[in-house]
Amino acid sequence: MLAELEALISLTPDFPQKGILFRDISPLLKTRLNDTIEAMAALFTSAEWSEIDAVVGIESRGFILASAMAYARNKELLLVRKPGKLPPPVHTVSYTLEYGQDSLQMSSQFSPSRVLVVDDVLATGGTLRATCQLCEQAGHRIHGIVTLIDLEALNDFHWGDIAPRACFRY
Amino acid sequence: MLAELEALISLTPDFPQKGILFRDISPLLKTRLNDTIEAMAALFTSAEWSEIDAVVGIESRGFILASAMAYARNKELLLVRKPGKLPPPVHTVSYTLEYGQDSLQMSSQFSPSRVLVVDDVLATGGTLRATCQLCEQAGHRIHGIVTLIDLEALNDFHWGDIAPRACFRY
Repeated sequence: MLAELEALISLTPDFPQKGILFRDISPLLKTRLNDTIEAMAALFTSAEWSEIDAVVGIESRGFILASAMAYARNKELLLVRKPGKLPPPVHTVSYTLEYGQDSLQMSSQFSPSRVLVVDDVLATGGTLRATCQLCEQAGHRIHGIVTLIDLEALNDFHWGDIAPRACFRY
Repeated sequence: MLAELEALISLTPDFPQKGILFRDISPLLKTRLNDTIEAMAALFTSAEWSEIDAVVGIESRGFILASAMAYARNKELLLVRKPGKLPPPVHTVSYTLEYGQDSLQMSSQFSPSRVLVVDDVLATGGTLRATCQLCEQAGHRIHGIVTLIDLEALNDFHWGDIAPRACFRY
């Protein structure tokens, strides 16, 4: 089934800028959302899922996958957002982009959970690293990291002894 | 059950700017995501759901609710995004904000669907109006509009003969 799902990720060269091959998951989300969520969730065993309280979704495409996965496995949903979107109190982590800096925030109002971090694409790893830092600042314990796509040619990302899992690797 | 859910929406005065009472759904999403999605989905009958092919999610909090609702009812998911995020070809609609202009985009690559438009909050209606325009430009037929919260004191929004539905009205 993974090959069928993969065939629904369309490729756009030079988007959003020259030299980038954009992998658009819109056709996949349109026609096979449920199978996609199941494929990602199935990267973790039942025993692993039983030790996860909450799914962490990263703004904004990460929200799509994290929310449906939290729903599917009846877990809590925690949000990591761009600055200024979450009301205080929040934790903030800044990180370096190819051009300039960006930052992410997570609420500090919740008690610690055992979390699974979810995003759509793992590229350089900057966003996931900042998210893992936020989770730890907020007292959450990271039990897993999963993306739909891992552009592993661009990164060697891991968090401590936790290796990211992915449905598709390029 | 709606009263229990409503009690989990926290209020932050003067956020993101002075004079705004921000209704934060983070505590609700954390602890009662599935009940929230069921409450929103239950605003439509089974007969109404049977005539809906796709759920339209609006970036970015709309993604959270739309994606889980599409998963829950096994529907397609269509995205309305901020400019420059979706690869071409796209439809674009601009709309006026309190200060300045904004625009939204939707892919024009998909064949027409019967859609349910989903967002978190209906405030002035600008975002929902732009989204409905995009859906029609893309050939989709709007069968319903739903938000978790309708700040109806701020709007009199409807789309043709379609009135928005909401779990909570203020």
